[in-house]
Amino acid sequence: MSNSLHLDIPRGVPWIDFTREFDAPVAAVFEAHRDPDKVRQWLGPHGYEMAIDRWDFTTGGGYAYTHTGEHGTFGFRGVFHTVRENEFALQTFEFDGAPDEVALEFMWFEDLGDGRTRLRGRSIGRTVEGRDAMVESGMETGMAEGYDRLEALAAGAGAGAG
Amino acid sequence: MSNSLHLDIPRGVPWIDFTREFDAPVAAVFEAHRDPDKVRQWLGPHGYEMAIDRWDFTTGGGYAYTHTGEHGTFGFRGVFHTVRENEFALQTFEFDGAPDEVALEFMWFEDLGDGRTRLRGRSIGRTVEGRDAMVESGMETGMAEGYDRLEALAAGAGAGAG
Repeated sequence: MSNSLHLDIPRGVPWIDFTREFDAPVAAVFEAHRDPDKVRQWLGPHGYEMAIDRWDFTTGGGYAYTHTGEHGTFGFRGVFHTVRENEFALQTFEFDGAPDEVALEFMWFEDLGDGRTRLRGRSIGRTVEGRDAMVESGMETGMAEGYDRLEALAAGAGAGAG
Repeated sequence: MSNSLHLDIPRGVPWIDFTREFDAPVAAVFEAHRDPDKVRQWLGPHGYEMAIDRWDFTTGGGYAYTHTGEHGTFGFRGVFHTVRENEFALQTFEFDGAPDEVALEFMWFEDLGDGRTRLRGRSIGRTVEGRDAMVESGMETGMAEGYDRLEALAAGAGAGAG
C-alpha cells in the first residue's frame, strides 16, 4: 500500500483535505508532532533550516518557528486549541508573509493496527482565494517532503532505533 | 442609520459574515470585548447568566465561560490567535455540545468617526453542515440581543457614564 500524500482540494470552498499513511505506530507519529526536537527534523520542504522559538503542543499552547533557505527566512505561528494524545490536534496557522490570513487546521491520528497510522487533516482558510494561493505556493510539495522525513523518523523510533 | 445586526450566510461555504454598527467609540466597543466584567454584561442571548472561568483577551490568550438559563448550562471555550487593540481580534470558538466542531472567528473593529464604530466579523466552521446547524440553533437572535446590550454598555462608557 502506498504511503504517499493525498490531497483533496474541492472547488469553491476554503478547505484542503489530506491523508497520509505511515509505517509507524500512532504514538510515534504523534510524538513526532509533540516533541520540538523531532518536529525540527521533518516539518517543511527540503532545503530549509527550522528554528523553533516556541513549541508547546498542548491544549491552549502555541508555536512559533522560522524556516530559512536559499529564498530567505519565513516565519509561522499559531495556537493549539486542542491536543489529545495519539488522537487529535487542532491549531491555527499563520504565515508572516500573509498577515491575518489565518487557517484553522484539524489533524486526526488514526491507529490502523499492525504498527501503521493514518493522519487525516483539514486546513480551512479565511477565503477560497486564500486557500487557492496557498495551494499555488507549492504547499503540496512541501507537505509531501516533510511527511517523507516524518515517516523515516517515526519508523525508526517505532523500531526502537530513534 | 440603523445599528441592527446584518448577517450574510452564503450557500455552499462554511462561513457567516456579519456587521453591526454602534453609537459608541471604537475604544469603548473594543474594551467591551477585552474586560471580562463588561463581557459578562452583554455576551449571549437574553435570559442567561454568564460565568467566566477565563478571559485573557490577548494574542496567545484564551477564554472559557458558561451560560446558564432555563434550558441548562452551556460551555464555550477558545484561544485568541491575535488581538490588536481597537483594531482586530481572531479567536477559535467551541461549544461543548459539539466537541471538536471548532469555528475560527475574525473580528474587525472600524472607527467610523463621530464616535461611531463598525464591527465586522467572519465565523468559519469546519463544514457547511456545521455552519448551517449553528445558524439553525438561533445564533442570529442571540447575537442580536447581545449586541443590543453591548451598545447600551459601550455608549454609556463612551459618554463617561460607564
